[in-house]
Amino acid sequence: MKLTKEQNQEIKDQQSQANSTKRVTAIELEKILYEAIPVLDHGFIRVVDYMGDDTSVVQAARVSYGKGTKKVSTDSGLIKYLMRHWHSTPFEMCEIKYHVKLPIFIARQWIRHRTANVNEYSARYSILDKEFYLPEPGHLAAQSQINRQGRGDVIKGDQAKQVLDLLKNDAERTYKNYEQMLNQQYDGTVIDDSKVGLARELARMNLTLNTYTQWYWKTDLLNLMNFLRLRADQHAQYEIRAYAEAMLNTLKKWVPITYEAFMDYRVGGTEVSGKGKEVIVKLIKGKDVSIEESGLSKREWNELMDSFNLKEKKV
Amino acid sequence: MKLTKEQNQEIKDQQSQANSTKRVTAIELEKILYEAIPVLDHGFIRVVDYMGDDTSVVQAARVSYGKGTKKVSTDSGLIKYLMRHWHSTPFEMCEIKYHVKLPIFIARQWIRHRTANVNEYSARYSILDKEFYLPEPGHLAAQSQINRQGRGDVIKGDQAKQVLDLLKNDAERTYKNYEQMLNQQYDGTVIDDSKVGLARELARMNLTLNTYTQWYWKTDLLNLMNFLRLRADQHAQYEIRAYAEAMLNTLKKWVPITYEAFMDYRVGGTEVSGKGKEVIVKLIKGKDVSIEESGLSKREWNELMDSFNLKEKKV
Amino acid sequence: MKLTKEQNQEIKDQQSQANSTKRVTAIELEKILYEAIPVLDHGFIRVVDYMGDDTSVVQAARVSYGKGTKKVSTDSGLIKYLMRHWHSTPFEMCEIKYHVKLPIFIARQWIRHRTANVNEYSARYSILDKEFYLPEPGHLAAQSQINRQGRGDVIKGDQAKQVLDLLKNDAERTYKNYEQMLNQQYDGTVIDDSKVGLARELARMNLTLNTYTQWYWKTDLLNLMNFLRLRADQHAQYEIRAYAEAMLNTLKKWVPITYEAFMDYRVGGTEVSGKGKEVIVKLIKGKDVSIEESGLSKREWNELMDSFNLKEKKV
Amino acid sequence: MKLTKEQNQEIKDQQSQANSTKRVTAIELEKILYEAIPVLDHGFIRVVDYMGDDTSVVQAARVSYGKGTKKVSTDSGLIKYLMRHWHSTPFEMCEIKYHVKLPIFIARQWIRHRTANVNEYSARYSILDKEFYLPEPGHLAAQSQINRQGRGDVIKGDQAKQVLDLLKNDAERTYKNYEQMLNQQYDGTVIDDSKVGLARELARMNLTLNTYTQWYWKTDLLNLMNFLRLRADQHAQYEIRAYAEAMLNTLKKWVPITYEAFMDYRVGGTEVSGKGKEVIVKLIKGKDVSIEESGLSKREWNELMDSFNLKEKKV
Repeated sequence: MKLTKEQNQEIKDQQSQANSTKRVTAIELEKILYEAIPVLDHGFIRVVDYMGDDTSVVQAARVSYGKGTKKVSTDSGLIKYLMRHWHSTPFEMCEIKYHVKLPIFIARQWIRHRTANVNEYSARYSILDKEFYLPEPGHLAAQSQINRQGRGDVIKGDQAKQVLDLLKNDAERTYKNYEQMLNQQYDGTVIDDSKVGLARELARMNLTLNTYTQWYWKTDLLNLMNFLRLRADQHAQYEIRAYAEAMLNTLKKWVPITYEAFMDYRVGGTEVSGKGKEVIVKLIKGKDVSIEESGLSKREWNELMDSFNLKEKKV
Repeated sequence: MKLTKEQNQEIKDQQSQANSTKRVTAIELEKILYEAIPVLDHGFIRVVDYMGDDTSVVQAARVSYGKGTKKVSTDSGLIKYLMRHWHSTPFEMCEIKYHVKLPIFIARQWIRHRTANVNEYSARYSILDKEFYLPEPGHLAAQSQINRQGRGDVIKGDQAKQVLDLLKNDAERTYKNYEQMLNQQYDGTVIDDSKVGLARELARMNLTLNTYTQWYWKTDLLNLMNFLRLRADQHAQYEIRAYAEAMLNTLKKWVPITYEAFMDYRVGGTEVSGKGKEVIVKLIKGKDVSIEESGLSKREWNELMDSFNLKEKKV
Repeated sequence: MKLTKEQNQEIKDQQSQANSTKRVTAIELEKILYEAIPVLDHGFIRVVDYMGDDTSVVQAARVSYGKGTKKVSTDSGLIKYLMRHWHSTPFEMCEIKYHVKLPIFIARQWIRHRTANVNEYSARYSILDKEFYLPEPGHLAAQSQINRQGRGDVIKGDQAKQVLDLLKNDAERTYKNYEQMLNQQYDGTVIDDSKVGLARELARMNLTLNTYTQWYWKTDLLNLMNFLRLRADQHAQYEIRAYAEAMLNTLKKWVPITYEAFMDYRVGGTEVSGKGKEVIVKLIKGKDVSIEESGLSKREWNELMDSFNLKEKKV
Repeated sequence: MKLTKEQNQEIKDQQSQANSTKRVTAIELEKILYEAIPVLDHGFIRVVDYMGDDTSVVQAARVSYGKGTKKVSTDSGLIKYLMRHWHSTPFEMCEIKYHVKLPIFIARQWIRHRTANVNEYSARYSILDKEFYLPEPGHLAAQSQINRQGRGDVIKGDQAKQVLDLLKNDAERTYKNYEQMLNQQYDGTVIDDSKVGLARELARMNLTLNTYTQWYWKTDLLNLMNFLRLRADQHAQYEIRAYAEAMLNTLKKWVPITYEAFMDYRVGGTEVSGKGKEVIVKLIKGKDVSIEESGLSKREWNELMDSFNLKEKKV
């Protein structure tokens, strides 16, 4: 990730603000406000605004006149209780806004989370930056043979080199032709004075899906956790997981008590079906239980055993 | 509206906070933060948190690295443009949170706006305050004879007195019986030590719809304006309009440029149908136009004439 | 629940329709379409329209050109997989619409589910029916001593009688005074020709919260299941659970495969936190584990033991 | 647009269904159900399911026990009234589902309408079709000189040919390299048995934004109209407008009364600001009014004159 001199200056200007407010503030989050935290080769996330902190969750749950906190330990107990029992509305009372730079194919996954507010950089209105995502060698994975939407082993050697060359060359060529059609370079320089350029809203269609875009993305704490739960999960595509993990760090700085409850009950937790529960109960009681009598499919059985680290019982 | 000593203290404690933040702040709004602004006889609104200001709208529309503002005049022009052309997403980038005390029958209208976050005081968990809405004499209106969901003239004299007596007595009696069933007074005092109380979640059903409830209500700037456009309108029920008007004042303090555009394009503006447009064009050109040839119903015709203050053309 | 002759006729008229359609139809659900299924003393639910069935879930998951079904067994496996892995969007592809009659205090809980479409009978526009909810003796529960928002033992004898009398008398008196203020009886008869009536939007505030209202409520299959998961749960208030249980039956008739997966993975299942998982793993391996070393609070520990029917390990 | 033999057969199979239902049916819409209506060079829309018709809007507005319709003329008046006064909820009571094939850059605009349900063909799971959008010569527009996000004159001659060649060649080459990286052709044929393929979720990033994707898209009538109002507008990008116009035809077949009101009040109508209203009133009264005294910006003034076809008054 590299920022222009002007962008760096704009970030510094914002960071040097010191306004007085009666609102609650999250001290650890303030320290990294506006900072561009690198993700992938050219992407970043920046927290650009927020509202509320852990005490706001408590305050809303109690509909109180004053600040949420009575004692930190009481607040912590209440937040854990709310998380455990899926009380959702108090977590909607905090809000956060990110500025994100990300490849278009990841933006397309991300936008499927509808309960957020988004303003994307408009390629109808402006020329997109000349930046493409190219995976690091360690992330150049083959198609998984067992999971139709997963990754297998890392591709190495000549084939890896060939893939990276194809990606790089195609992105560069299509971008060059994008400029050609626009009759303008990425920096605005006109290429041929005697010609008009193709409409930006059309020319953009020539770009590849690893081109970077950027947006402002704002959501509440509940929906942020729903996003992170799915996207920081090991089943998520690596590239979006990289963003989710960077955001998990900002969550920790923002609402540390909620973060802890979230990691325990959601990220670190598991669901067990009705049939699965019966299997677990029998196992605890030392009884034998076979996949046949459990009513579980082979896949379900193995997922259950994985959940409880009982690899030896997988079939 | 009266607050307990403890509530007043909690509000003062919040108002005396002076935190340092790098976030944008709305200076005029900070001045009234947490303050309970009276509405109706026992209700209030309080702004308890907010995020962003006019510059945040501009910043998101431009997806910029720095603060939105270049020059205030440019920002103002952009915000007006966005409002005029129904660009909605930049206005979603600001957020506000209110603490509201309001009668239940108004809460039931209010909650129909789904794009907000709400935590209501729980009458399953706690005893509701002993406060009921009683209209002021000037708002005790008869049923409109021409609009099935509107108000007509103010009711006066004996009938007015009788109505207010009925409302007051019924509210007081049902509340007293609510306490009786709970076997507890509003302040928590147990009535009869030898008895258990009915479950709070059941006893509450005896209360009348003018009983006050309260909630935390959080929404973004776009949805706040959608709410205010409908609820500050003269067709809205007076009691919810009273809240909307108090909130309009907070909007003005929070985002003055957006407020001005909102008042001009939404609140003060009007819509004209395709057929209506043809009538207006003819009127401008000095041509005669009759309701018959316009294709408008009588009701539509009159609504159109009202929109443009052409009362003399009503039929 | 009693319907007027006219209402019964309207229902019959709808049920006698036999239209030909190319859309998928749910045969079992068609059998009860429009039927008013009684809930509580005067309430009901009626399925008045629907779109899609189990095959629509499969069709959307596959984005296929044809009907979802290849083989029922394949479809069933896919639906279970989707449910287990929280794939939500295919379940949004089915839609259902209910007509519901319910007490206002229950309507206030229900409406908190925002992702639904609602049209409520307007008490600004019309006079509400003269019907109030009165609990059956078996549901007249005392306040729970251990759960601030729960029910304890059933209240009996004189106190029960007294509570029911209070509820009945207050509802009847406030309704009578509502008519008085309207200067109109529930059936439209004017009471005193020489008087005007109070505006309906004001008079309604005198009604108690157990008065029945009604609405059209439409939602998609995913959000219906979210609703049922919370409201058919034993922690839900009995009165709303009664509606949820009646709706569970309609779910079964509509999408039997999805229903089965829902009952196994959601209703019958449980969540286990990260710390809870460690306890379960130790129990399965026959190791001793104490609440102290588990890091769980007493409340969490007991909830975990309850989840797996290990009452003997509760502390 | 061309469909495979198998796809055509699947469509025919669905169209030959003749199920009996008690639900309301929209006869004109049934006639085109499942049919692939061509849009752009390879895209289409297909209505694959629907719920409700004009009478459902009326039924919900009245919260009636029976079918909405009393008399068609009454229904029509009520629907117009609802549309004119922005009563939104009754229009949410109808639902429609489309299967759409569209270029990715258009899908990215479309998905910004959040209040819809979507299942997109997964390029993590499957190989995308080998189809790209290439504009027809008549739509190859230059960048507008006056509107930063609009189109100017059509590009012709050599430059047009060059642009189309670039688009075509780049799309074909990047697709070929996509196959190369996957080690599989679009039809599934493995290219080199001795190699593994790159994960599909990575390879897809090499595709250009004019590649076609497809999805199931379901929304309610209100949100469909919101979509169409913005996307069938002349300010919308031509390519999405092509879809919106095809969908307008399906709207007309589905809910003809609502369609008519929508065309009159929304599509054919206009909004006038408070200041604009004053200008119009003066013009009607034959008074002189200048842009200076109007308080309108030049841009606003001209937009207002355009709205009422007063081109001669533009400045």
